This record gives sequence, structure tokens and C-alpha cells, in this order.
Amino acid sequence: MYGLIGRIDAVPGKRDALMDILLEGTAGMPGCLLYVVSRDVDAPDALWVTEIWARKEDHQASLTLPAVRDAIGRGRPLIAGFAQRVELDPVGGHGLPGPTTG
Amino acid sequence: MYGLIGRIDAVPGKRDALMDILLEGTAGMPGCLLYVVSRDVDAPDALWVTEIWARKEDHQASLTLPAVRDAIGRGRPLIAGFAQRVELDPVGGHGLPGPTTG
Repeated sequence: MYGLIGRIDAVPGKRDALMDILLEGTAGMPGCLLYVVSRDVDAPDALWVTEIWARKEDHQASLTLPAVRDAIGRGRPLIAGFAQRVELDPVGGHGLPGPTTG
Repeated sequence: MYGLIGRIDAVPGKRDALMDILLEGTAGMPGCLLYVVSRDVDAPDALWVTEIWARKEDHQASLTLPAVRDAIGRGRPLIAGFAQRVELDPVGGHGLPGPTTG
């Protein structure tokens, strides 16, 4: 598996609009096991995107999907910055689909 | 929903041992929708725990479960520090169980 945690800071006042764009079309990405968008409780402009993919290549391929490229284009003007990005090797746990989880 | 992202730094050399403890018993926590433990690809002692709960109260109640208290007790000597902790309001996405996800 391959994972990403990213904090995206929206232009002030645009967090929910950016969130809606990020949530569109997330069901059709091959190899995507998890894609969750969350508001930061303490930082009013910050969103966190948590992604888990079957393979790193699946994530890279998703960036070429028309729906994803369209969302990136529409979301870009609402983004003030990428505040944090962590690459993960997800090991296991509860709640993920697939044989490695409980 | 209620979410948490936390980075835990293990005592050097003890990351995998700490990971195994964190993964034990994660299937039996009421209200837990997701609990994933991941290795940080770039920081050799760092683990990331990503949690999503139906309600904040479910997370708080989990800390009193015997299996969780036991794991906390066994894991504590392997922890060098809690490097980051972010509280989340998860909004939606793909891969979560329940009616709010795609």
C-alpha cells in the first residue's frame, strides 16, 4: 500500500468551496482504497486529505484522470498553499477494504 | 464524524515493535470507522495513526477499554514523543463505511 497525508490551506473563506471540489469524483479512481477530506478543527482555512492506494503507481496514474485534472484546475485558484505532505507506508489496522485489514 | 491524525516518534529502533502494539485489538472499538497505522517513508522512527470515529465521544470511550489501556501501557516505554496531533472534522470521500461516503 501507499499513503499520503496532506494539509492544504485554502484562500481565506474558500475552504468549503475547495472541499467540495476535492470531494467530486473521488469514487472512480482505480486502486484508491481511501480518500477522505477533513476540516482542521483548529485552523479555519486548513483541509487535510488522507489517501491510501493499493500501489504508489495507482496514485500517480490518478493524476492523469480527466476528472482529477479538471478538479485540480478548478481548485488551484482557491489554494493558498500546501502546508504539509507526508508519504506513508500503511501497514494495517481497521476499516480499510482488503485482506490486510481487520 | 470525528477524526485524528497523530505522529508518534518511537524510541530509535523500536518503531516496528510499537507498530505491532498499536495494531493489536483495533477491530473491537465501538464507533471506530477507521484506524490505520503507517510508517513515515522519510522519518525512520515515525509512525502516523489516522483515526475516524462516528462521534468524538466514541474516541474518548475507547481510551477506557481494557485492550486499549493494556496497549497504551505496553507501548509507552517505546515512545520517544508525540510529534504532531491534529483534530479533524471528516466531511466525506471514498472508502469509509457508512452513508456519508461514496
